[in-house]
Amino acid sequence: MSHYLYKCFDCSTEYTPEEIENNFIYLCPKCGTANRNEPLKGVLKILYDYIDIREKVSGEQFLKNPIGEIWNYPFLLPLEVENDKISKVTFLQLEKLRLTKEPIYNIEKNLQIFDDTRNPTLSYKDRATQLIILKALQIGIDEISAASTGNAGSSLAGICAKLGITSHIFVPKNIPASKRIQIQSYGANIYLVDGSYDDAFDLCLDVSKKKGWYNRNTAYNPLTIEGKKSSAYDIFISQNGELPDYIFIPVGDGVIISGIYKGFWELKQLGWIDKIPKLIGVQAEGSDAIVRYLSTGEFNFIEANTIADSISAGAPRNLFMAAHSIMDSDGFAISVTDNEILEAQKALTAKYGVLAEPSASASYAGYTKLKNQNNLEENSKVMLMITGHGLKDVSSLEKWNDSPKIRSSEEWKKELS
Amino acid sequence: MSHYLYKCFDCSTEYTPEEIENNFIYLCPKCGTANRNEPLKGVLKILYDYIDIREKVSGEQFLKNPIGEIWNYPFLLPLEVENDKISKVTFLQLEKLRLTKEPIYNIEKNLQIFDDTRNPTLSYKDRATQLIILKALQIGIDEISAASTGNAGSSLAGICAKLGITSHIFVPKNIPASKRIQIQSYGANIYLVDGSYDDAFDLCLDVSKKKGWYNRNTAYNPLTIEGKKSSAYDIFISQNGELPDYIFIPVGDGVIISGIYKGFWELKQLGWIDKIPKLIGVQAEGSDAIVRYLSTGEFNFIEANTIADSISAGAPRNLFMAAHSIMDSDGFAISVTDNEILEAQKALTAKYGVLAEPSASASYAGYTKLKNQNNLEENSKVMLMITGHGLKDVSSLEKWNDSPKIRSSEEWKKELS
Repeated sequence: MSHYLYKCFDCSTEYTPEEIENNFIYLCPKCGTANRNEPLKGVLKILYDYIDIREKVSGEQFLKNPIGEIWNYPFLLPLEVENDKISKVTFLQLEKLRLTKEPIYNIEKNLQIFDDTRNPTLSYKDRATQLIILKALQIGIDEISAASTGNAGSSLAGICAKLGITSHIFVPKNIPASKRIQIQSYGANIYLVDGSYDDAFDLCLDVSKKKGWYNRNTAYNPLTIEGKKSSAYDIFISQNGELPDYIFIPVGDGVIISGIYKGFWELKQLGWIDKIPKLIGVQAEGSDAIVRYLSTGEFNFIEANTIADSISAGAPRNLFMAAHSIMDSDGFAISVTDNEILEAQKALTAKYGVLAEPSASASYAGYTKLKNQNNLEENSKVMLMITGHGLKDVSSLEKWNDSPKIRSSEEWKKELS
Repeated sequence: MSHYLYKCFDCSTEYTPEEIENNFIYLCPKCGTANRNEPLKGVLKILYDYIDIREKVSGEQFLKNPIGEIWNYPFLLPLEVENDKISKVTFLQLEKLRLTKEPIYNIEKNLQIFDDTRNPTLSYKDRATQLIILKALQIGIDEISAASTGNAGSSLAGICAKLGITSHIFVPKNIPASKRIQIQSYGANIYLVDGSYDDAFDLCLDVSKKKGWYNRNTAYNPLTIEGKKSSAYDIFISQNGELPDYIFIPVGDGVIISGIYKGFWELKQLGWIDKIPKLIGVQAEGSDAIVRYLSTGEFNFIEANTIADSISAGAPRNLFMAAHSIMDSDGFAISVTDNEILEAQKALTAKYGVLAEPSASASYAGYTKLKNQNNLEENSKVMLMITGHGLKDVSSLEKWNDSPKIRSSEEWKKELS
């Protein structure tokens, strides 16, 4: 018997790993649907025997784990690490996949950032990709696909290149040039779709099914959520159990916030923490389906339109789980304008030397907004998730960095005298 | 009495830190010259009391240091760490400056890379900048300048932003756009010079002297060499004393190779290693002054012309020390064409998932060349220094990544069926 099971987020039906993984199933076989321009239904959660783990491992022991090395806690991962398909060789190769080891630091009193821009492909997405690739190796598939606004694609492409696996990336035509070029440079097969991210998402599902490629589409593949929980563990470990009060998280499809929630929820199940930090989902005004859902209880598709490409999703695929994660943490969701995002990007870079892409800067924009409105409890500890590097989208940086004048040495000497 | 002293590389005159630092002197007061389009003369080395250190610290103890945290060995740094100007507060801020913690991994049998593309500003230059900034704080200056082809500038700009220090960056007009934008984003003052890097170098010296800015110009400021030695320590620590036989290093001004040599030379002085790895300097064919100097014993200025902007230097400022470092390590220097560099960049990215800028790819190009010529001893252990991230120069990546066709979902389905 396996140490984990799959459970449908919507209808609560449970499945063994064999039932799901051996049949290349991603959504709940009973109620799962992936419709055009709609959130997914039947997204699967992965659960472990928390009572058993609690008996075997203490919080104090867990706190001794190093940051960024998920293979130190196989009992909280959906992998058969003893399975010889993930051989010792593979595990030795994992040094190539290591996440950043010290993502968290203070930028002001009571204000920390979680800087995931120094991962192998410079984004948070490497957390999910790590796990996806190990699973693909375990089930014996060596071609993996993903739809992406850029980061998931470059993450999959980059890590596949490190391990000699073929990748197929479906992207919308308006992808920032730097991200497209990053994906291509890693030698991935890239498919530029004349449409939105939502269109690329659907196309990727179709083609991957026909081709038998393992699919990394976010939320659709439950391991994306599972991989993204590791930052919650990293926060727990690095803060020695003293969690922040608020965590600001950029939200597009809603998978990162669901993953972070899942990580904390598990720590609570295990009795290692008492309370989950308040998760504040930050969306762009032009892509705010989750903000609207939380206020009205209804989902309505509106074509996304924002400079923050990584959180641009008209139909957040993991909407229901993300909304639940926010509510259960006693948090909320807010939206910020593109202008506020660019202002935040500028401030983060110039004030703190943190060069984040627009989507990642949204967390700082949201924090600034709430702080200016006095909507944060005083003296509370805040953490901002910084999920992608600024150089992944140079065109956005160009918007507020005009090329300076070129002058001869003599002219400069005069100018500066 | 201080625990270190300055010694002229050329005339061997020794100076106390007070004589040099308190007078804002950089080159040897006796013989130093910084002439247009010439290597510097009178570059200063920093030396420690190795006999004393040897008595107090063993190699085994040193091997227990963590990687990327230079402040664990203050006795090998030119800083008065007890000096209250580098206060505890500053040291706490150093978490923001941390270098990558696991730069080294295998990509093939007997072939390792030292991947410094995940440092705070994504290049090797952060090693020097770390130290420069600590020194500036110690001597009480809060404006720092540098001439740069891009990486030194973005490193100084980024780390200054993290600590609230003003930076002034002088760059040639042909700087890659991504690097320029990175520098500007950090809020630095940027001066675009209608000329070459050599011109920007001279202008920066002039203006900084007048303005009283602390100058980070590479080689000119002896702490640049000193900061860059830390990778030798990191190699020693991470390999538990088992050093590679060859290290391939991209060479422009010759400061990185001199720094790496210095680190190993010190480990040898301390009796912790027997032999310095053979250092192989790799230059671009259009910027090969050190290759020519080593073969003819003469320096001739030729305007540099290469796609590898970070190693583009007609007059390598640290030529003499670099040449000595290569010879004393029993290594040599070779040149590679721009085409070989781009081919190497492509192979590194697609085969190994390592996205390096052209200059950093030169080390792989050099290795490939020598291997194909059977010019490396069999079964020797090789390490490649990867000194800057590929996304710092997107335009070079564009050269071999055409934009793919945009197709509708239906067209893609047909294409892929």
